Amino acid sequence: MSSHEFYMETALRNAQAMKGQTDPNPLVGAVIVNDNRIIGIGAHLRAGEPHAEIHAIRMAGEKARGGTIYVTLEPCSHYGRTGPCALAIVEAGIRKVVIASLDPNPLVAGNGVKILQDSGIEVEIGVLREESERMNEVFNKFIVEKIPFVTLKAGITMDGKIAAYTHDSKWITSAEARLDVHKIRNENMAILVGVNTVIKDDPELTARIPNGRNPIRVIMDSKLSIPLESKVIADQKAETWIFTSQNFSEDKRNVLENLGMKVFVTTGMTSVDPKEVLQILGENLVSSLMIEGGGSINAAFLQNKLVDKAVIYMAPKLIGGKDAATFFEGTGIDKMASAIELGDIEVSKIGKDFKFTGYPVYSE
Amino acid sequence: MSSHEFYMETALRNAQAMKGQTDPNPLVGAVIVNDNRIIGIGAHLRAGEPHAEIHAIRMAGEKARGGTIYVTLEPCSHYGRTGPCALAIVEAGIRKVVIASLDPNPLVAGNGVKILQDSGIEVEIGVLREESERMNEVFNKFIVEKIPFVTLKAGITMDGKIAAYTHDSKWITSAEARLDVHKIRNENMAILVGVNTVIKDDPELTARIPNGRNPIRVIMDSKLSIPLESKVIADQKAETWIFTSQNFSEDKRNVLENLGMKVFVTTGMTSVDPKEVLQILGENLVSSLMIEGGGSINAAFLQNKLVDKAVIYMAPKLIGGKDAATFFEGTGIDKMASAIELGDIEVSKIGKDFKFTGYPVYSE
Repeated sequence: MSSHEFYMETALRNAQAMKGQTDPNPLVGAVIVNDNRIIGIGAHLRAGEPHAEIHAIRMAGEKARGGTIYVTLEPCSHYGRTGPCALAIVEAGIRKVVIASLDPNPLVAGNGVKILQDSGIEVEIGVLREESERMNEVFNKFIVEKIPFVTLKAGITMDGKIAAYTHDSKWITSAEARLDVHKIRNENMAILVGVNTVIKDDPELTARIPNGRNPIRVIMDSKLSIPLESKVIADQKAETWIFTSQNFSEDKRNVLENLGMKVFVTTGMTSVDPKEVLQILGENLVSSLMIEGGGSINAAFLQNKLVDKAVIYMAPKLIGGKDAATFFEGTGIDKMASAIELGDIEVSKIGKDFKFTGYPVYSE
Repeated sequence: MSSHEFYMETALRNAQAMKGQTDPNPLVGAVIVNDNRIIGIGAHLRAGEPHAEIHAIRMAGEKARGGTIYVTLEPCSHYGRTGPCALAIVEAGIRKVVIASLDPNPLVAGNGVKILQDSGIEVEIGVLREESERMNEVFNKFIVEKIPFVTLKAGITMDGKIAAYTHDSKWITSAEARLDVHKIRNENMAILVGVNTVIKDDPELTARIPNGRNPIRVIMDSKLSIPLESKVIADQKAETWIFTSQNFSEDKRNVLENLGMKVFVTTGMTSVDPKEVLQILGENLVSSLMIEGGGSINAAFLQNKLVDKAVIYMAPKLIGGKDAATFFEGTGIDKMASAIELGDIEVSKIGKDFKFTGYPVYSE
C-alpha cells in the first residue's frame, strides 16, 4: 500500500464510521498530512454540520499550510453553511489535494477541482476511487437518477430453490444469516415484497436488531388483494405503502387508507410496473430499497435491469424438485451468453451458509 | 501441529503422491522415526509391490529398532507377497505404531492392531484419521459395499439453473472450470448420463487432458432410444455401457452390440433403477462413478441417497426462468428440515467460478 493509499484508507474509515448518521448527505472523510505526519482528520458527521475538510482544516490549524489533504469526495464548490470547501482549502494554504472520487452529480463534477487548480493547487484524482464510490453507492445513484438504489436479497439452497415443492421454506438459512438480513433491512429506507409473499408468509418485514430502524414496507399488489389481518397492516410497526394497478376496488382502498396505509395507484391496467414503483418511491425521497420478493418479483426487477446489488445467502443444502420455486423465475433470459453477471463478487461464510454480494452487469 | 501430526502428514503426502498408480489397492504411506528424526519413509507404489511399511522398514534398516512407525492405514494381517506388515513391524523391533485409520473392511479391521498389541507394541489410532479416510474414499466404500463411490458433478448458475428456458447452456462455467471437470473424469472409472443428455448435447464424455484416461461411458436409456450417430457410440474413444429396462427393442440391442456397445437389461419394466445400475457396475469392478446428468438423473441418484460426494461449479451469473432446468429436479424433498445437507463443504475460486465440494448428509 502506497502512503497515498494509506492516508486515503484512513479518510475512508472515518467516513464509513458515520454510516447511517449523515443522511441525506454522503459519507465523506478527510486527512491532512504535512512533514510526513497526519496533522488533521475529519469526517462529515451530520447533515447541516461542517463538511469533512472543514473539520480537518480546523484541527490542523496553521500547520495545514503547505500540506496535502486527502479527501474521499471532491471538495464542494457551492455556498452552504460553511462556504465552498474548495475555497477553504485554498485559504488554508494547502498545496496538494488527493481525491478518491469526483462529485457523482455530473452537473457539478469537476467544479471543485477547477477552483483548486485555478488557485495553483496540485490535484490528484482516483486514489481508492472504487472504495469511495461503493461507500456512497446509494447516495451516488439517487442524486443522479432520482430513483432508489435497489438491493435484492435472497436466501436459497445450493440448487437455487427458495422453498420445497410443498412450499415449506422454514428455514433455508441459518440463524446467523437471518440476523444479517435484519442488518441490511436496517440500512434500507424501504423493503419490497409482492402480495403473494404477504399472503403465504405473513412477514413482519422489520429490522429486529437493537436500535433497528424499520424500513417502509412496500407491497406490490395489483388487485389490492392483501388480507387486512396481515402483520404489515395490523402491527403498526412501520409504514406500509401499497402499489396497485388500475384494476383495484375503491372500497378496499378506502379501508386500507382508513387503517393508515398509503395506497399508490399506478398507470398499469392490470399489473404494476416495477420501474414506476421506483419512480414513485424516488419522488417520495426513498433513496434505498431492498427487495425480498419471491421468484416472480425478483424476476420482474432483474429482467428490467433494475437491481443494483444482489446479496445471496446460500445454504449448503439441496432440496430438489422440478416444481419447487427458484429465486429468479419469470420468463428468464434466453441465452447463457446474455445471463446477468454478478460483478465484483465477494463470498464470505456466515453461520453454516455462504453470503455472496455482487453487482449485476446486464448485457445489452 | 503436534509432531504426531507432522509425521502422519508426511506419510499422507507420500501416499497421495501415488494417486492413480495403486489401483485396485488403496493409497498408503509410512514414516519411521527414532531419536527425533525420520529414518525411513515408504509408500505403496503399485499393486503387487511391497506395502508402505515394508519400504520404510527396509530404508530404516537396523535403526528401526526401538522406533515409532506412522502409517496411514492399519498394517495388514494377511499373508500376501511379503507376509503381514504387522509381523514385519514386530520383527523390525519397532516399539510404537501410530495409525491414521483402521482397515475399512469391518471383517478384518483391528486384526493388524491385535498382532501388534499381542507382541507388546504400543498402538495409537486416529491421528489425521479423516484425511486418511478421505484420501481412500473410493477404495473404502467399494471394499465394503461393492458398489461404486458416486461423485455428482454439476455446472450451474447462481440461481441453480443448468440451462436457459430455451435449453441454451453454452457456456455456464468458465474454461478453467471445464478443464477441472476433465480432471475429475480422469479420476473416475465410469461416467453416467441419461439418454436425454446424449440426445440434446451429444457429449463425448472423455477426459480431454494430457495422458487422460477416458472413463467408461454409462448411459441410462430405458427404451434404448439412443441415436446411433451419437459420439458415445460412433467415436470409439472409450467403452460405452447402456442400461435399459425390459421395455426395449431386441433389434436395437443387436445393432448396439454389433457396434461394440455393452447393453445391460435391468429388471425394471419401464424404467432403470439407479441402485441396480450401481450394483451391476460394482459386479463389473467399477469402483468409482461420476454423474453428469441433467436434473432428472441427478434427482434419481440424490433422492435415492446414492450420491457420496457433490462437486458443484457455480458461475456468478443469473439466467432466471420458471421453466429453465435446475440441476436437481424430480419431485424433490418435501420439507426444508429434511433437505440434503452438504457436509465438510469446501469452496474455492476456479476461473470466474466457485467450486463447492461437499459430502451429502441424508436425513432419515
